[in-house]
Amino acid sequence: MARTEISTMGEFGLIKHLTKDLKAVQPSTKKGVGDDCAVMDFGSKKVLMTTDMLLEGIHFNLEYVPLKHLGYKAAIVNFSDIYAMNGTPTQITVSLGISKRFSIEDIEELYAGIRLACERYNVDLVGGDTCASMTGLTISITCLGTAAAKDIVYRDGAKLNDLICVSGNLGTAYMGLQLLERERIVMSGPTPNPSLKGGESIPAFEGREYLLERQLKPEARRDIIESLRKAGIKPTAMMDVSDGLSSELLHICSQSKVGCCVYEDKLPIDFQAAALAEEMNLNIVTCALNGGEDYELLFTCSLDDYEKLIPVEDVYIIGHITKPEYGCNLIGRNGEELALKAQGWNAFED
Amino acid sequence: MARTEISTMGEFGLIKHLTKDLKAVQPSTKKGVGDDCAVMDFGSKKVLMTTDMLLEGIHFNLEYVPLKHLGYKAAIVNFSDIYAMNGTPTQITVSLGISKRFSIEDIEELYAGIRLACERYNVDLVGGDTCASMTGLTISITCLGTAAAKDIVYRDGAKLNDLICVSGNLGTAYMGLQLLERERIVMSGPTPNPSLKGGESIPAFEGREYLLERQLKPEARRDIIESLRKAGIKPTAMMDVSDGLSSELLHICSQSKVGCCVYEDKLPIDFQAAALAEEMNLNIVTCALNGGEDYELLFTCSLDDYEKLIPVEDVYIIGHITKPEYGCNLIGRNGEELALKAQGWNAFED
Repeated sequence: MARTEISTMGEFGLIKHLTKDLKAVQPSTKKGVGDDCAVMDFGSKKVLMTTDMLLEGIHFNLEYVPLKHLGYKAAIVNFSDIYAMNGTPTQITVSLGISKRFSIEDIEELYAGIRLACERYNVDLVGGDTCASMTGLTISITCLGTAAAKDIVYRDGAKLNDLICVSGNLGTAYMGLQLLERERIVMSGPTPNPSLKGGESIPAFEGREYLLERQLKPEARRDIIESLRKAGIKPTAMMDVSDGLSSELLHICSQSKVGCCVYEDKLPIDFQAAALAEEMNLNIVTCALNGGEDYELLFTCSLDDYEKLIPVEDVYIIGHITKPEYGCNLIGRNGEELALKAQGWNAFED
Repeated sequence: MARTEISTMGEFGLIKHLTKDLKAVQPSTKKGVGDDCAVMDFGSKKVLMTTDMLLEGIHFNLEYVPLKHLGYKAAIVNFSDIYAMNGTPTQITVSLGISKRFSIEDIEELYAGIRLACERYNVDLVGGDTCASMTGLTISITCLGTAAAKDIVYRDGAKLNDLICVSGNLGTAYMGLQLLERERIVMSGPTPNPSLKGGESIPAFEGREYLLERQLKPEARRDIIESLRKAGIKPTAMMDVSDGLSSELLHICSQSKVGCCVYEDKLPIDFQAAALAEEMNLNIVTCALNGGEDYELLFTCSLDDYEKLIPVEDVYIIGHITKPEYGCNLIGRNGEELALKAQGWNAFED
């Protein structure tokens, strides 16, 4: 692959190069890249705004994350936040901090991933900032979306006896990360495993593609939002699962001033994820509760919606909302109660 | 000053701590920090969106930039982009990447500066992302604003014979940076100046406070936007001067498909800046053309507005728009013509 230094284009040249054939698809986009600001017209709809920052060495490791996948994911995590409000993502701005290690081809790859995500989700890239960094790659994306005022779902609307539901499955992205991390150590570790001969060090990803996909190329659950709308269900509270189910449930319960009860045997767990957890001596339930990065939707809805909920595909009822004094609890397979904790890693710790 | 490790609070604790007494002042802010997205209602107005990223070691040096000033500036540079469209900034989201070198008190200082800027400009802080970084500090702010469709000023509207105007003065922020950089080397250089005795190494900032202020605590020119509105002038094209006058003029001319002619003796230069340039053997005109970070407003307006423009304070006519084939030129004090170039430093070069 060619390697062209970014200094041959400079900042403006690079921006022009990366954005030259961008076309707006959203009617609300009046002016995209190329002025001090983008201009949007949302008529009488509400505007949603969210932002996410990804830092090299913290959120991603380029030893095993291809740049195109990284760009895709950086956009998706923002779209997921807009869907989690029951809205529709419409525009993003992309800010990049780029060290000298990266070439124009690298940044093209990253941008290709961002643009692919935009195309698939009908989102316009309308601006950004591109600058040099001392070390590593920083990606900061801000996303706007729209929703009719009556459709917006906040975190604070969960009511006593509401059903707690989650889409897809949990802990899978985390197991994908464990798999990648294990292979990275095998492939590049300072002390290669002496029991391995040359030919044996091929990454053991076969049959585990789904785990990798969940980690490297997550999707935002637009389909679930559409299914719920079709089924006539408006959640009472909703979040996307980015930091882990426990952490998100605690957010919903504290903001809604309620407690909750979820059942271990109701948590949707993928078979491949469970098999790898077993192999790696990890507790898959702990991974499902605290793993993070699943970008599934966690929501509560009225018990009255139960009948409507049953035919909705890929949505699982995992518990119900209780009085606040009950707290937030997991009921184990043998009926034991465990208080939920936000164990999600604290990246500020050593 | 106390030093509390960020790990004692974690991400959510830190966000809660930093945002606990935020109050919305903009009627359009329906929901601020605390959900997946902020929610805004702009009624029938147009929405403007801009973003800027500041990286340690590239955009700022914490050896001489206090964190509170840095926060203030990081917000201001975004407001400036909204004013440069003839809009009003209304909401920001703030994303921070923070290394272990920083304590909670440090981030409070940074946030205090951001919040002060928000208060002064009536902008709501409505969300963000706070995460650990491997090295250094990264600040990414995205700003929304509003404008009536008829008021928005783009870069591409400059017409033949339009007047070219600029507010305030140019090159001053750059000279402030030179001053800070010189004192940093004197104070912390590996080879202290042997001719200096202990008492003499006090920073030579006296009488030069204005230069420092322009670099460390710039303001966005809301006052100019208001004055122009009162005077009944709508610019035909406008930008803020962040990369240097030459670079911005070239943007306006290329997007408007026109040429321009500006006069060296019309460029507004501050006296302190000129004196320091002389002392440091720098050409102040070059600094004014290429210095950057002035956050003044550069605009064009119809010759018919000349009479209305005269009483507007702190706005200077520096030239006029020409046919595109004339190119973009500076007329020197002796009548010599010089083609304008975007000399602004290329941070991607070695």
